[in-house]
Amino acid sequence: MDERSLIRSLVPVLGAAATADDCATIQHGGEWLVLSTDMLHETTDFPAGMTDREIGWMAAAVTISDIAAMGARPVALLLATGLDRPERLAGITAGALECCRAYGCDLAGGDTDAHTELTIVSTGLGTALRPVRRSGAGIGDLICVTGYLGGAQAALSGYDQFWERLIAPEPRVAAGLALNAGGATAMMDVSDGLAMSLHDMLGVNDCGFTVETVRLPIPDGVPAEEGRDFALFGGGDFELLFTVPPERFPVAGVEATAIGRVVAEHGVWADGASLPARGYVHTWTK
Amino acid sequence: MDERSLIRSLVPVLGAAATADDCATIQHGGEWLVLSTDMLHETTDFPAGMTDREIGWMAAAVTISDIAAMGARPVALLLATGLDRPERLAGITAGALECCRAYGCDLAGGDTDAHTELTIVSTGLGTALRPVRRSGAGIGDLICVTGYLGGAQAALSGYDQFWERLIAPEPRVAAGLALNAGGATAMMDVSDGLAMSLHDMLGVNDCGFTVETVRLPIPDGVPAEEGRDFALFGGGDFELLFTVPPERFPVAGVEATAIGRVVAEHGVWADGASLPARGYVHTWTK
Repeated sequence: MDERSLIRSLVPVLGAAATADDCATIQHGGEWLVLSTDMLHETTDFPAGMTDREIGWMAAAVTISDIAAMGARPVALLLATGLDRPERLAGITAGALECCRAYGCDLAGGDTDAHTELTIVSTGLGTALRPVRRSGAGIGDLICVTGYLGGAQAALSGYDQFWERLIAPEPRVAAGLALNAGGATAMMDVSDGLAMSLHDMLGVNDCGFTVETVRLPIPDGVPAEEGRDFALFGGGDFELLFTVPPERFPVAGVEATAIGRVVAEHGVWADGASLPARGYVHTWTK
Repeated sequence: MDERSLIRSLVPVLGAAATADDCATIQHGGEWLVLSTDMLHETTDFPAGMTDREIGWMAAAVTISDIAAMGARPVALLLATGLDRPERLAGITAGALECCRAYGCDLAGGDTDAHTELTIVSTGLGTALRPVRRSGAGIGDLICVTGYLGGAQAALSGYDQFWERLIAPEPRVAAGLALNAGGATAMMDVSDGLAMSLHDMLGVNDCGFTVETVRLPIPDGVPAEEGRDFALFGGGDFELLFTVPPERFPVAGVEATAIGRVVAEHGVWADGASLPARGYVHTWTK
């Protein structure tokens, strides 16, 4: 069973809203609070060779990215750390603090415990006047991505010049806020790859998504075909995937590329062919 | 190294405020948001024999208790679950949902992952006009506890009639809100035992705490000496420990017992003798 099937199995228990976005959203006062939690394990989530400081940065960054993907401003982060060795806490905390500070977020607290394998759960709180959800795409909207895609997968495939991209992801907080203000209709981060992300959007929108692979912004110095494969199916990038009416694109202050269109027919296509929901997937093998 | 020493080691990195209370507090709009995260592992935190539903309830309850202990109202809970077997998620989620509903809290989302040992991190958000902190005790205040103490430890020691108390803790949300409104000056839950909790309060207050063990509300049917030992040094209870000016006690709607006084001298005493900081402590044995 994979993670998405498992989460879908909770829809009858929790309702669709609790499982639709990377963040939970809570209307509060005149605005919305967004909350996200991410569980990371040493052997499955952190590439070998990372320092504790880099691990702490990454744990904070993945959660801040979820908040950024709602077009929200990160406010506070909590870190629960299951430590195989207590002396690792200082480096992990320092890295998380560095990342929080870089994005104007308060590392406000946490919990620690002993564990056989390093386990980190980062939980973030953000605020937005109106969060941008994965749902909300309109027929005729452009499909766009910030920055470029496939860099993390390139690093995992031996292109060492992308190592920093893999281990020190930079959540697109400023871009998320600008896209929220600039009229993005649906948004999420592409941390499990573009194809998976488009299928995630498909699951909560009545329309469809068609992209042209020649338009994909791929890593410099990687052959085009391989780069497109990394972009479509590689995980570990933290760029934003969003839809926006064409008349509102480009959005001031956001470096982004239009890669396709939202269409009426329900499905995901690349260059006219059906695009499989393949990418980074957590699975239970037993 | 134990958990408290480890957390103290973070004070130079994070500042004392980030480590002083069970919840992080964030001023927001005209009120405060409180955030708490708790990491639980199957072998160390859940007594053997619990069902998945009971495990889910307990994971939610410990976090809701942290929010209650700030005199705050629980609003939303996220559950990150590292599963040894994916089929456990449904029962755990159902139990957490039941607990959330019992306390007016929304189970708003979460994350799942595979893990060799069941690991649950519950993170809760609450709101309060003014949170009650562990600091704030005033000289001359009464030291009080809600309900009775030592029930969970009694269950662990073979008094089976307290098993429900151990595995299905009931966070004191209504009492916490009433005590906040009723003038409690400092508050926390006693989940690591009364002695540890008084020492936790000592760490963030300039005054001292003296209690009389004859006043401790102990479990019915347990011999007095053993009951007092459970109350002082046993973990797993989720009652509230609070200080309040004598003229404001009792607080309407709260069943509580005055067990001692806040004094000027810095220290913790029981029946006039220094009380050791002994109780439930997470340790790293290697």
